[in-house]
Amino acid sequence: MFKVGIIGDGYTAADLLRLLTRHDYIEPVYISSTENIGKKIYELYPNLIGFSNLTCEKTNIDKVKEVCDAVFLALPHGLSVPMVRDLSKANIKCVDLGADFRLKDSSIYEKYYDMVHESPEMLTDAVYGLPELYREQIKKAQIVANPGCFPTGAIVPLAPLLQAGVIENEGIIIDSKSGVSGAGRTPKTASHFCEVNEGLKAYGVGTHRHSPEIAQELKFAAGNKTQLIFTPHLVPMNRGILTTAYSRIRSGINPSKIRQLIEDKYNNEYFIRILPEGVFPNTKWVYGTNFIDIGIYVDNETGQAIIVSAIDNLTKGASGQAIQNLNLMLGLKENEGLKLVGLHP
Amino acid sequence: MFKVGIIGDGYTAADLLRLLTRHDYIEPVYISSTENIGKKIYELYPNLIGFSNLTCEKTNIDKVKEVCDAVFLALPHGLSVPMVRDLSKANIKCVDLGADFRLKDSSIYEKYYDMVHESPEMLTDAVYGLPELYREQIKKAQIVANPGCFPTGAIVPLAPLLQAGVIENEGIIIDSKSGVSGAGRTPKTASHFCEVNEGLKAYGVGTHRHSPEIAQELKFAAGNKTQLIFTPHLVPMNRGILTTAYSRIRSGINPSKIRQLIEDKYNNEYFIRILPEGVFPNTKWVYGTNFIDIGIYVDNETGQAIIVSAIDNLTKGASGQAIQNLNLMLGLKENEGLKLVGLHP
Amino acid sequence: MFKVGIIGDGYTAADLLRLLTRHDYIEPVYISSTENIGKKIYELYPNLIGFSNLTCEKTNIDKVKEVCDAVFLALPHGLSVPMVRDLSKANIKCVDLGADFRLKDSSIYEKYYDMVHESPEMLTDAVYGLPELYREQIKKAQIVANPGCFPTGAIVPLAPLLQAGVIENEGIIIDSKSGVSGAGRTPKTASHFCEVNEGLKAYGVGTHRHSPEIAQELKFAAGNKTQLIFTPHLVPMNRGILTTAYSRIRSGINPSKIRQLIEDKYNNEYFIRILPEGVFPNTKWVYGTNFIDIGIYVDNETGQAIIVSAIDNLTKGASGQAIQNLNLMLGLKENEGLKLVGLHP
Amino acid sequence: MFKVGIIGDGYTAADLLRLLTRHDYIEPVYISSTENIGKKIYELYPNLIGFSNLTCEKTNIDKVKEVCDAVFLALPHGLSVPMVRDLSKANIKCVDLGADFRLKDSSIYEKYYDMVHESPEMLTDAVYGLPELYREQIKKAQIVANPGCFPTGAIVPLAPLLQAGVIENEGIIIDSKSGVSGAGRTPKTASHFCEVNEGLKAYGVGTHRHSPEIAQELKFAAGNKTQLIFTPHLVPMNRGILTTAYSRIRSGINPSKIRQLIEDKYNNEYFIRILPEGVFPNTKWVYGTNFIDIGIYVDNETGQAIIVSAIDNLTKGASGQAIQNLNLMLGLKENEGLKLVGLHP
Repeated sequence: MFKVGIIGDGYTAADLLRLLTRHDYIEPVYISSTENIGKKIYELYPNLIGFSNLTCEKTNIDKVKEVCDAVFLALPHGLSVPMVRDLSKANIKCVDLGADFRLKDSSIYEKYYDMVHESPEMLTDAVYGLPELYREQIKKAQIVANPGCFPTGAIVPLAPLLQAGVIENEGIIIDSKSGVSGAGRTPKTASHFCEVNEGLKAYGVGTHRHSPEIAQELKFAAGNKTQLIFTPHLVPMNRGILTTAYSRIRSGINPSKIRQLIEDKYNNEYFIRILPEGVFPNTKWVYGTNFIDIGIYVDNETGQAIIVSAIDNLTKGASGQAIQNLNLMLGLKENEGLKLVGLHP
Repeated sequence: MFKVGIIGDGYTAADLLRLLTRHDYIEPVYISSTENIGKKIYELYPNLIGFSNLTCEKTNIDKVKEVCDAVFLALPHGLSVPMVRDLSKANIKCVDLGADFRLKDSSIYEKYYDMVHESPEMLTDAVYGLPELYREQIKKAQIVANPGCFPTGAIVPLAPLLQAGVIENEGIIIDSKSGVSGAGRTPKTASHFCEVNEGLKAYGVGTHRHSPEIAQELKFAAGNKTQLIFTPHLVPMNRGILTTAYSRIRSGINPSKIRQLIEDKYNNEYFIRILPEGVFPNTKWVYGTNFIDIGIYVDNETGQAIIVSAIDNLTKGASGQAIQNLNLMLGLKENEGLKLVGLHP
Repeated sequence: MFKVGIIGDGYTAADLLRLLTRHDYIEPVYISSTENIGKKIYELYPNLIGFSNLTCEKTNIDKVKEVCDAVFLALPHGLSVPMVRDLSKANIKCVDLGADFRLKDSSIYEKYYDMVHESPEMLTDAVYGLPELYREQIKKAQIVANPGCFPTGAIVPLAPLLQAGVIENEGIIIDSKSGVSGAGRTPKTASHFCEVNEGLKAYGVGTHRHSPEIAQELKFAAGNKTQLIFTPHLVPMNRGILTTAYSRIRSGINPSKIRQLIEDKYNNEYFIRILPEGVFPNTKWVYGTNFIDIGIYVDNETGQAIIVSAIDNLTKGASGQAIQNLNLMLGLKENEGLKLVGLHP
Repeated sequence: MFKVGIIGDGYTAADLLRLLTRHDYIEPVYISSTENIGKKIYELYPNLIGFSNLTCEKTNIDKVKEVCDAVFLALPHGLSVPMVRDLSKANIKCVDLGADFRLKDSSIYEKYYDMVHESPEMLTDAVYGLPELYREQIKKAQIVANPGCFPTGAIVPLAPLLQAGVIENEGIIIDSKSGVSGAGRTPKTASHFCEVNEGLKAYGVGTHRHSPEIAQELKFAAGNKTQLIFTPHLVPMNRGILTTAYSRIRSGINPSKIRQLIEDKYNNEYFIRILPEGVFPNTKWVYGTNFIDIGIYVDNETGQAIIVSAIDNLTKGASGQAIQNLNLMLGLKENEGLKLVGLHP
């Protein structure tokens, strides 16, 4: 049994605990908090009554090193860097669910997160934790940067098309719609019930922090710079991200290549379900799970590929993918503890 | 591996399939339908893609007898009787999720369901499937009548108090609030999105079919007639029933007995979580699970006990409890396949 | 045109502004705030773009006296007392939407609001602002205590029955269910979207501050002490309170009296709509309006009257009723500016 | 007082009645139905209790001609044509809220609506009822084709840019998100509460019927063919459409022209509210109103204009706009009866 610690007590921490209750090889033994020190985790999340008896402690990295084989960090950006530096030196496997190790270029980090990166040299070692693209590197990694929720939904379907060069690098439009849990558990006006319910809005138009993260990975896939627009929207539901991605098929490419390339790339992936022609995903179908469902449409008249993906933002978009990554890092089966059916209705 | 059939393709059938994906000893091998014959069940419920490959068949009892050890019937009232008669004679264990075997008195069935019961003689054999009250009978039963969703939430907390005679038999008020999935999957105005969302109403005031079912079981618990009011309400959410039950503590009874009796009765029950003083349940905490959470308040001024229970109407209120029952009938561990953490948020 | 000021910038203030846009005789000329000083009110509530150009000012009672004929105070409890004292002396009509003038007995105020009342002598002068019960007093009042949202839904249907002595004073159960806007606009965990959506809970069981307010008014109606249980619940919707009130019909009373008394009392009330037998209200039907819809059921077997009322908690439960009160105080038509159709769907 | 009839009893009919309760010059005198003949309209929509006493009648065009000056037709496609032909000959003003008169090219109608248009010659006479673009023609029209809800949200912001030639005619992406009331009141699985709530999906990808309607109007604006992708999504809320439109600014055009052109075009429009830089619309702010709120972002790096619009799909997207049109046709003030504040929260 591998012992794991969780730094942070927000929604992604809670979802890690939910998922680990059914994991046969990883056991959460430690959780730390800043605001709920001394409380049982099931007092914050009573769904965990009977499942976890952990008490929120003040973060103590020395203790983590002592009792844990691995650690999930679920913190606001900026806070993970010194902890991960320390823990990884002590040979603790680190999966960082925050933003600190996702961007390879620290100057972009500075621009989007208004903060100088404390240890830019670590960015090379950290592996971007999208197993469907970086499986082998993840297996050997000491530090995994768990992808953002929006990037997961956007990169997975677009990467194989850019790798194969069948869509243009420019003019990619990523229109994403997210449930509210992505905004975390800290109360604020923007996620106050009455401000969200029965409403719909775009936010972070042209400026969202997940934009450079998507750009980085699409560039790696394409082999050179891509140019994209990413617009997130807030939808009155708890969980789920639906991403509608528009891209232009390069001239001379047979439109049927689009579906074929995605299928070829992902056919053996447990967590990717490519839907048949004419069927498009619903975030309900992946509710509470680690799946990414993909629907594909090629518009012959305009030469556009429209690809729609659905994930659960807290699971494949955060905690589920983090466990998927740790499974790989620990030499376990990748879907260990993650064979989850969506909750419908 | 026990082979089980499911008759019906509504939400409770879908929830059975969701739950059985993680059951180590029961395997669904058959599903029947009237409207979706020939369709894969995952086409109706795409959350099941990759988990169930069953095809909806026309109901064929002979085939069920051939391939199944047990069967779940999830049908509108009236339809189960002949099937259960036939199946139980063939020694197939039957769990009926409908209303046909719940009421022991066929005249009350006739009054509330506008239908003559075809086989009233079977009502004696059928066991009311509330394991926390009838565990031993269920173990030996051939036919189990799975309780209604509202009755489950009302009977569990009130039964020990009536058994002990600490509350009055008269003047019991059961005010219940349910999510919309209890109304089933068939489209109708009353469960049309825009008619429900951002609204709240009482329905079936004084006439709901679950009223005599609750009355029957409270009478059995009390040992003589009780008199109650049951009012259901429809709440804009998918899953969950919250029941607020009001009853008068008998004079001379120490109010602290209320909590103590409920705790004594249920302390060893896996699926019952009694919350500490001052904490009241939220349906979110049992979302997707087989738990029943109970909060208790005694009003010393008025001598009223206020007991609040929360269940997931589709799970503890239907499919989860059905599996709990079948586990018992088959000699399996009662919570086999049902150790589920609530999905929050 | 009467000039009115609004002290406070929360949801009830916003709803006052919405309603006053269509009022022909009352014009809002002043709004004050603590946290948004200097902001245009339409920046907080962009639905008001084009309708109100008011700027949130620091509260300045001298200015209010100068520019206003009347004032609405929409403040947390405790803050209104000194302002109302000052304003009413200056002959400004005051409608207080908070709790400071509702309870006639300052010792009960102290017990429930953890605060000594600064001016208990004013409690006699203040009129409880339920026009359907206190119309004539309101017309002459300088200070009106606008009722709480839950009390409005509970008192209106029960008062005529207690006045007539047809129901028992004891054992009254008031089970209320509210949308989330009742909790105000200040972000907190309990009204965070993901903590509310897809969930349902009871809160303040046995301890809610609206309980003594209801008790006071039912006692006034009955002429002597009543004894009641009030349990509020939180429902995932923005607006609306549904109240299900249970009471025992006195022996010897013809059950048909229940409906008749309510109808006789309220038949000429513009804002009360008594639904026909068998029809029960839905909060959707009063969405955004000042109506209170009432459904009545008499259970002959148990001798209980079940009365269900629906209001919009922000309108009839707060701002609409406040305008109704001010209309009376200013000698205007009672429904001036309030002839609103519910928004459905 | 102009007398108006309403053919149809769905949600747009209900919204017409809601809006007309506050119209000083138009009075609804007739409503027809197919399924609810003989019922009071307030039985279907109890929010109308006290506001409309109309009884649903069997459609009788002769009676309409007799008692009405104008008529709103709110019918499934195909049914309006013969009625409008008949009514317009009798000099009755017709506003058709359905699809029968929107497309000028009957072959496109046939392709998208699977039906031969019965009177293609009438398509020339009918005016497309977007007052902000066709005000003068509408004033003189006998037949107005009220635009679809999605087209309204897409055409208004894009038309001035295409007219001015500042964006490219190709590669326009219109990603729209709608509440559920757009699907009408007829129960069906796709708008069943539990199938929609807590979910999000794209639908009609590449094939939606509003696509050719948008294409037609953008082409008229541009003066020649445009090429666009339109993708609608279904959002778990009752009312509202948010449209995010992406288009490429032509090379050589100063990006600041985008905002300027939209502002210049619409500055004097009562129903268009252009939000300041950095502010993007929320459907909540136009809830229940006839406004269209527009937010504008120009991405200098990619040369894309991102324009976000919000409408209430039933009001500006249907019934409100229909009244706006009829106001013009009858020589009334355009915003008569439509000065509505959004309901928030």
